[in-house]
Amino acid sequence: MSMLREFQTIGYDLFVAGLNNSHSGNMSIRVNRMMAITRSGSMLHRLEYNDIVETLIDGEDSESARASRERPVHRAIYLQTGAQAIVHAHPPQLIAASFFCDKFEPVDAEGRYFFPTGIPVVEVVNAIASDEVAAKIAPLLKSTPVVIVRGHGTFAVGNSLEDGFHYTSSLEHSARIASAYRANSNSR
Amino acid sequence: MSMLREFQTIGYDLFVAGLNNSHSGNMSIRVNRMMAITRSGSMLHRLEYNDIVETLIDGEDSESARASRERPVHRAIYLQTGAQAIVHAHPPQLIAASFFCDKFEPVDAEGRYFFPTGIPVVEVVNAIASDEVAAKIAPLLKSTPVVIVRGHGTFAVGNSLEDGFHYTSSLEHSARIASAYRANSNSR
Amino acid sequence: MSMLREFQTIGYDLFVAGLNNSHSGNMSIRVNRMMAITRSGSMLHRLEYNDIVETLIDGEDSESARASRERPVHRAIYLQTGAQAIVHAHPPQLIAASFFCDKFEPVDAEGRYFFPTGIPVVEVVNAIASDEVAAKIAPLLKSTPVVIVRGHGTFAVGNSLEDGFHYTSSLEHSARIASAYRANSNSR
Amino acid sequence: MSMLREFQTIGYDLFVAGLNNSHSGNMSIRVNRMMAITRSGSMLHRLEYNDIVETLIDGEDSESARASRERPVHRAIYLQTGAQAIVHAHPPQLIAASFFCDKFEPVDAEGRYFFPTGIPVVEVVNAIASDEVAAKIAPLLKSTPVVIVRGHGTFAVGNSLEDGFHYTSSLEHSARIASAYRANSNSR
Repeated sequence: MSMLREFQTIGYDLFVAGLNNSHSGNMSIRVNRMMAITRSGSMLHRLEYNDIVETLIDGEDSESARASRERPVHRAIYLQTGAQAIVHAHPPQLIAASFFCDKFEPVDAEGRYFFPTGIPVVEVVNAIASDEVAAKIAPLLKSTPVVIVRGHGTFAVGNSLEDGFHYTSSLEHSARIASAYRANSNSR
Repeated sequence: MSMLREFQTIGYDLFVAGLNNSHSGNMSIRVNRMMAITRSGSMLHRLEYNDIVETLIDGEDSESARASRERPVHRAIYLQTGAQAIVHAHPPQLIAASFFCDKFEPVDAEGRYFFPTGIPVVEVVNAIASDEVAAKIAPLLKSTPVVIVRGHGTFAVGNSLEDGFHYTSSLEHSARIASAYRANSNSR
Repeated sequence: MSMLREFQTIGYDLFVAGLNNSHSGNMSIRVNRMMAITRSGSMLHRLEYNDIVETLIDGEDSESARASRERPVHRAIYLQTGAQAIVHAHPPQLIAASFFCDKFEPVDAEGRYFFPTGIPVVEVVNAIASDEVAAKIAPLLKSTPVVIVRGHGTFAVGNSLEDGFHYTSSLEHSARIASAYRANSNSR
Repeated sequence: MSMLREFQTIGYDLFVAGLNNSHSGNMSIRVNRMMAITRSGSMLHRLEYNDIVETLIDGEDSESARASRERPVHRAIYLQTGAQAIVHAHPPQLIAASFFCDKFEPVDAEGRYFFPTGIPVVEVVNAIASDEVAAKIAPLLKSTPVVIVRGHGTFAVGNSLEDGFHYTSSLEHSARIASAYRANSNSR
């Protein structure tokens, strides 16, 4: 599958599954010393050729300004971990749950299988595209495939966008189950 | 992208994302002294060539009667603001929340980033296609990209339908998060 | 649009909008003394040529046995009303609400606009494909475009499948808003 | 319809309907002494030719290692029942409800019609791909078309993948209605 097609497929699926709204989230793939990252302001579910920006991981070039605002976070992750791809999304049930815990712990079997020790939630003062986010989450992503920025969303890493999508989709599914679990528990 | 294709794409996405039901909502684009607006009774997620009506912004012509019932609201917005496009939708969580506040204030980071002072909710006696709605919301849309008509839905303005979709989708995402936040809060 | 295409489009949209599950619901169009009705056991979101059964409205023929189990209800509606098309669906929020009221009354502006006096809920002993349902709802559909069978689903009539889809989709949207309204109300 | 197309269609619909996340679930069809089963790690909503693995039902061969982790469960079901096809999914409302009952009993008419005695919930220590799951659920599937593994998901059997999809989709629809029913009940 071509790289553009991989961006398009995963971007579309994130939207259809309710993991992003029309313009939220961003994705990137490591390509040697460069990253291919979604354009600032692009709609991940309707990506076109011009929406993928190839820019240096470490340093500025003529394309940097077109990249997603979250590029500093992607840069820090690529510099500090072995991630080959990054998916940032806004899964609503996880975001809501993140206000109430320092670690998201699934109650369902699949969630416990993939995330046996839970997923860390980090608190930041400035959640959007900040150096603070970069500094706090990049080190964590050496030992966990996903981090939740409290009240903001997820950063998931892996060998491909599909990996990042997998972790994001699975975790939000667990958060939906956990939410329904609490509703059941309270109404009986 | 052709104008028809832009209407079709945004109309489809509004439906798939649950921001409109089969026949709710309407959209328009300013074209000099005219507006291109969706047909009264059209399904925004399945728009065809005949579903886009070009009619005068200020005045009546042979096409006016085919336009969306909400045309008076679109007209007032075009006359009083610099809006190039308008998206009216019925996002269910925002509509529900609008009964309980005079301003919708997101709890999530993206919502606070895009809408730092919140989004005004206006109360009207007659919410559907009324001069009252036109008179109340057009002035507000000079300084905010979205207004919520209590119990009815959103009017979002921008330079393109994509802008209006962006604001609508982002706000409803914030309303879903806010709703899940309250459910979490109450069950702990 | 061909009749098959109309069935396919509306059937698909009902599923995508969550108004039916994989095999629930059925639809028909009046064609003179016949009705074209979906096949028993068909998936409304993936209808093919053989899934549309043309059979007498009043009487049995070689195709009757292939028609939806709910054919007796469709027959009674065609005999007692001027309906040109019928959409039966299983909208989950409306079904849940139907246990608690004799009339569903929207709280949102669109719902009140289209259904100013509310939508009747009928109680039956045997809700599935019964003569009892036929006898109770057909007379009501002379004066209301939709009836809710308590705990079962909706029957909506109009001049086309699109009309039936419109009423069904709009009502369930109102039921979602009403449900979120109550959740908001209880958590403040 | 070709077998690959049947896998693709049902896999896609399971995802769109929210019954699986990006990589959850698996499906198989009995083909004489073999089963055709989805590949371990495949995305059911985007299956390609190489994602369908043909392997012995009873015994190991060169393809076994590529099959879904849940192959032991599929094997036990094929050996102990007349199932021609199996659908395993993760319907979130059912999973949440399964923590609170030993049998899921629908409140809606369709659910009671298809599942008049309810659907058994089995408790296991190790829910993922275990011999324990195989041993507990295969005997039950002689007399019920679906079993829920507590906190994990559903196994549904029938003459085709469509049958398994039918039971899964219908049950989760009932679980959504039951959840909304309780929310209504508590807020009145």
